[in-house]
Amino acid sequence: MSRPAPLQLVIVGSVGLDTIETPAAKHADLLGGSASYACAAASFFAPTGMVGVVGSDFGKSYLDIYRGFGFDLAGLQVREGRTFRWSGIYEDNMDNRRTLSTELNVFAEFMPELPENYRRAPFLFLANIAPALQLRVLDQMRKPRFVVADTMDLWINVALADLKKVIRRIDLLTLNESEARHLTGERMLVTAAHKLLGWGPRYILIKKGEHGAMLFSKRGTFLMPAYPLDAVNDPTGAGDTFAGGFIGQLAAGGKVTEEALRRAMLVGSVIASFNVEAFSLNRLRKLTRRDFARRITAFKHMLRI
Amino acid sequence: MSRPAPLQLVIVGSVGLDTIETPAAKHADLLGGSASYACAAASFFAPTGMVGVVGSDFGKSYLDIYRGFGFDLAGLQVREGRTFRWSGIYEDNMDNRRTLSTELNVFAEFMPELPENYRRAPFLFLANIAPALQLRVLDQMRKPRFVVADTMDLWINVALADLKKVIRRIDLLTLNESEARHLTGERMLVTAAHKLLGWGPRYILIKKGEHGAMLFSKRGTFLMPAYPLDAVNDPTGAGDTFAGGFIGQLAAGGKVTEEALRRAMLVGSVIASFNVEAFSLNRLRKLTRRDFARRITAFKHMLRI
Repeated sequence: MSRPAPLQLVIVGSVGLDTIETPAAKHADLLGGSASYACAAASFFAPTGMVGVVGSDFGKSYLDIYRGFGFDLAGLQVREGRTFRWSGIYEDNMDNRRTLSTELNVFAEFMPELPENYRRAPFLFLANIAPALQLRVLDQMRKPRFVVADTMDLWINVALADLKKVIRRIDLLTLNESEARHLTGERMLVTAAHKLLGWGPRYILIKKGEHGAMLFSKRGTFLMPAYPLDAVNDPTGAGDTFAGGFIGQLAAGGKVTEEALRRAMLVGSVIASFNVEAFSLNRLRKLTRRDFARRITAFKHMLRI
Repeated sequence: MSRPAPLQLVIVGSVGLDTIETPAAKHADLLGGSASYACAAASFFAPTGMVGVVGSDFGKSYLDIYRGFGFDLAGLQVREGRTFRWSGIYEDNMDNRRTLSTELNVFAEFMPELPENYRRAPFLFLANIAPALQLRVLDQMRKPRFVVADTMDLWINVALADLKKVIRRIDLLTLNESEARHLTGERMLVTAAHKLLGWGPRYILIKKGEHGAMLFSKRGTFLMPAYPLDAVNDPTGAGDTFAGGFIGQLAAGGKVTEEALRRAMLVGSVIASFNVEAFSLNRLRKLTRRDFARRITAFKHMLRI
């Protein structure tokens, strides 16, 4: 499954089978996990390799979905046992997500091991997994040009020391607004972001869901509203597809300039807006270049001053 | 107190003395009310006249604050009795505002009566007051070019029929996101806005507080994030100063084009961002052209794609 072209981007994260209930529908065993969403989004833009683990129950139909996106699977381990499973419910008009169950299964013993050609990729996205595993991946990389890491409340609570080690070694930290407040103890996002910039990264990207995203650096701030939708069918993976599209677009261009970062925010927003229109990767699977280009054009028009 | 120059904009709304408590401070008898905030903001841009009512207890110091902004006071009635009073508290890190008391006082009998020169103003802002009073003002105007109206949950609950009459007669309805959902029964703002466009106005402006604002018309959508602040000391009047700056800027230009509307959103956001930095009108009273121009420039840079 390796690809002759060198990889531009490596993404490590979770791969899972999700059972998701919304006010309108319930679906079981959906292909999900941070790596699935991020790789699917990134693969529209740059040659991407996935690092993750699945169990022996991970059916061919799921692998076929991955192959449809065309990202590299040499970094995906298959272990005896069951694949990671998560189930959750969106309540209160989708405003609140509650986890019903988490089964780590093969994910409990996951030790990321990067194929040789992955280690030279210039762009790396450490999607949401335990900071210790993010560190293990960082240790295997040979001087990546730009490293983005995501995290979640769980790691702030149970693995803060490791998380801070990750934060010291990356270029951009992405997290949502409640996590930014939780991690820094600051209510104002501007203050939280500047505190986090002091911890090491050159950039802090705060995701605000339906309210967009904010990118902070010591040199300035960039604001991006979310693309306005008339229907959201499943918000799962919005942040992962945003980040995947964001770093995929950066990796495609190869250079991290202010202009490239702004374009990457636009791309991330639009990819995420498609993703939430359907469960799992179902909308991204059908997404065409033309759909994407049209929404980019419409979105730019909405943002023009 | 009338001014020889013709008025470009008339604003009607409440004038009150507010007692406000935040996690950090408490202040009593602050100059407030929707008309105070909106007129103060608009007066930076266009010759504006205020329509409202105060009691005989409304001290000269408050009038001096109004005079400092330079808007016209010929439409401000002074009635025997006490001025409208409101007190509220911001809880949960400012995320929740709770009303502690409301005393209507002279406001209970308010009958707006526009001076002759007010009736020919081309721009009108019906800030948040009872829809019946907004209708009374509309009846006195001679073909204004552009009318904006604001409202609140209270009127949706107790005066829906009158509110719908107002909505049919205006060009732009501004309301916050929870009000848009409440008024239409639609959870998605895009859907809510399009439903409201069907009720008459050419434009729907949905205010999202710290998350910015969205302007909808049948021809397109315009998104504006909020200016990011590292401190908010009193959110009171944010929506009123946004709307006042917005229509003040439109009135100054005189033409309602797409470009003018976008510029007006930018101006409204920046004026509102200053307002929340201090209680009452205290920040706007000190605001210089230079402060304003600097923040506009910084903000535009944050929004560039």
